[in-house]
Amino acid sequence: MLGNCIKNVRAAVPLVHNITNYVTVNDVANILLACGASPIMSDEPEDVEDITSICKGLNINIGTLNKRSIEGMFRAGKKAAALGHVLLLDPVGAGAGAFRTDTAEKLKKEIHFDVIRGNISEIKTLANGSKTTKGVDADVADAVTEENLDAAVAFAREFAKKEGCIVAITGAIDLVSDGEACYIIRNGRKEMGKITGTGCQLSGMMTAFLAANPEQKLVAAAASVCAMGLAGEIAWERMQEGDGNAAYRNRIIDAVYNMDEEILEKGAKYEVR
Amino acid sequence: MLGNCIKNVRAAVPLVHNITNYVTVNDVANILLACGASPIMSDEPEDVEDITSICKGLNINIGTLNKRSIEGMFRAGKKAAALGHVLLLDPVGAGAGAFRTDTAEKLKKEIHFDVIRGNISEIKTLANGSKTTKGVDADVADAVTEENLDAAVAFAREFAKKEGCIVAITGAIDLVSDGEACYIIRNGRKEMGKITGTGCQLSGMMTAFLAANPEQKLVAAAASVCAMGLAGEIAWERMQEGDGNAAYRNRIIDAVYNMDEEILEKGAKYEVR
Amino acid sequence: MLGNCIKNVRAAVPLVHNITNYVTVNDVANILLACGASPIMSDEPEDVEDITSICKGLNINIGTLNKRSIEGMFRAGKKAAALGHVLLLDPVGAGAGAFRTDTAEKLKKEIHFDVIRGNISEIKTLANGSKTTKGVDADVADAVTEENLDAAVAFAREFAKKEGCIVAITGAIDLVSDGEACYIIRNGRKEMGKITGTGCQLSGMMTAFLAANPEQKLVAAAASVCAMGLAGEIAWERMQEGDGNAAYRNRIIDAVYNMDEEILEKGAKYEVR
Repeated sequence: MLGNCIKNVRAAVPLVHNITNYVTVNDVANILLACGASPIMSDEPEDVEDITSICKGLNINIGTLNKRSIEGMFRAGKKAAALGHVLLLDPVGAGAGAFRTDTAEKLKKEIHFDVIRGNISEIKTLANGSKTTKGVDADVADAVTEENLDAAVAFAREFAKKEGCIVAITGAIDLVSDGEACYIIRNGRKEMGKITGTGCQLSGMMTAFLAANPEQKLVAAAASVCAMGLAGEIAWERMQEGDGNAAYRNRIIDAVYNMDEEILEKGAKYEVR
Repeated sequence: MLGNCIKNVRAAVPLVHNITNYVTVNDVANILLACGASPIMSDEPEDVEDITSICKGLNINIGTLNKRSIEGMFRAGKKAAALGHVLLLDPVGAGAGAFRTDTAEKLKKEIHFDVIRGNISEIKTLANGSKTTKGVDADVADAVTEENLDAAVAFAREFAKKEGCIVAITGAIDLVSDGEACYIIRNGRKEMGKITGTGCQLSGMMTAFLAANPEQKLVAAAASVCAMGLAGEIAWERMQEGDGNAAYRNRIIDAVYNMDEEILEKGAKYEVR
Repeated sequence: MLGNCIKNVRAAVPLVHNITNYVTVNDVANILLACGASPIMSDEPEDVEDITSICKGLNINIGTLNKRSIEGMFRAGKKAAALGHVLLLDPVGAGAGAFRTDTAEKLKKEIHFDVIRGNISEIKTLANGSKTTKGVDADVADAVTEENLDAAVAFAREFAKKEGCIVAITGAIDLVSDGEACYIIRNGRKEMGKITGTGCQLSGMMTAFLAANPEQKLVAAAASVCAMGLAGEIAWERMQEGDGNAAYRNRIIDAVYNMDEEILEKGAKYEVR
């Protein structure tokens, strides 16, 4: 069932507006193309309303926010919401500093997002106001493990219910919940953490998946998480002697490029609680 | 005859100033190095005049414009024009929003460019004020095909004559005209559209080609279009099982790196009308 | 002895704050991950103090500076200095324009850096006020060669002594001095100059090496230079028919990813005067 989500992306070719950090923006654009979507980037307040109007989804990532781009986020977000577009928030580094945390909080408060996607530390920050992140990577103490899985699932479900949106918490084990069901996903490899921007790439791709599957948003969000993790597994199989994280980065995007309904359906490892 | 243009780039090593979008800027820098030129980036208004003064060409790309960088574009453009440097305008997303369209129009009005290079939708926007682009990719309805080729050539020639500059319209079939002759180029592969920034890369490279071939600018512009398309063909030959758009991106830059006069001369597919 | 420096990076996983140019920022992030460190980027003045506070080192690179990011550099730099963090200045393009030169001078004056790392033209600009750079690449006339090596070593040592910091001058022959000893390093390949950002990548990695080796900063700086050059040598061995500068870029990062204490110890080519 998950598999048809990528087929729908390739059929619909949704145009996705990304206001995202300048560190990983090129990879976000290329993975959107790889999965069958079309990317456009714009963060200038005077430009974003027109740009987002011709799109189907808006991906807001605060990784290298600045005052101008924040204004762009709010203007684009309000316009996209008014048009009924898919909206995703990636609160990169929430918890690492007050400016980021406050911006993420304010975005969340003023704009209704379809999905909030982050690592466990970022999501905990938004849920609890706790500030435990180590930079842009999740704090080890927070990690979702088989041991604390029940509590983590309850947390994801509760936060999703409270926010009235889908919450995607990604890490070694990924959780995707809409407040009722919760997908527990075990695709991926730990080596993906040695590449910058796999989370940012997922946020872009997830926005495209939701935009192309408006009637099954939770399934689409889970499918994109499976697709990213599965790409990490397929890419790892293709690694050669002497390859490292730069080759791995390219191979992951390539694996998404070559992924079809059947590969995703067969490779997705998840359960629903 | 086209082949010697890349030889001249490698001999002259022109320094090219790029005010370009942050999505594909790294690829622009690497393809400039690949073809034998040298890149420098700067968009701060206080910095651009000095920087452009030590260069031979200026590549202005409005892909992720903002108010500050627009000021940088005008200051750099006016300085470069006063110094007789090569100037290229890449109106990314013109037609996708009023801010971009207006900025491209204003740049075109206040600064004389040697070349305007874009996809057919962007160029039509500048020529007709029509607004038909789908994001940063050309609208399918606009595409240059064998069927509408005569009309497209006439359009390119007329717009070039009106603007008094070279116009390069790139797509499945590429057109390059100075208002008199028109090169019709059939290098390239459709899969290049699945990589972000092949157009931006071409704009950077075209600026270098003109800067190193000041006495044959039209030929140089056409040669750079052939070189990019040919690189796409050579790179595709080198694709391996499991490769996708990330590998393809790298292989295209690599093909430019290994391209010499003979390869370009032999591989260029064009006619002149 | 140099070899243990990379081991210490992998053990300590230092978080490095980078205010760096948008051209090569992705490669800086990936090479930091490759060597065992963790990157974070932020240039917004309101954000940088919090971000740098959770880090161990700060890498300031003026490659695409603007007025806002310069304010971020000063605020981050002063905070990091107050906290005793490792600070590195990469004066990209100093000498190419007054704005860059003045900014580098002012940063150097108001903030105490542990290392200043640049090419010979940039460092000469800071030392002498001479303006001889050709863009962001070193002027050929300035290059450190076997012929002028004695004078170059004396220059590096003197400038380091005057500034009270480590000076790293990178090129065909690299010099790293703290005002007393001077490492002369002969790792690397000339083809590294055909990739954008090997210098920026080194600056990021050097910051991590110093942060993880606070009691042997000069050795750590030299070790990072050896590691980068050695990665260039190993990567070149892995180049295949048809590969060019894009493949080489990836292979260099991959070589760092696979580098351990033994490889670095064995491959480092240096003498100390």
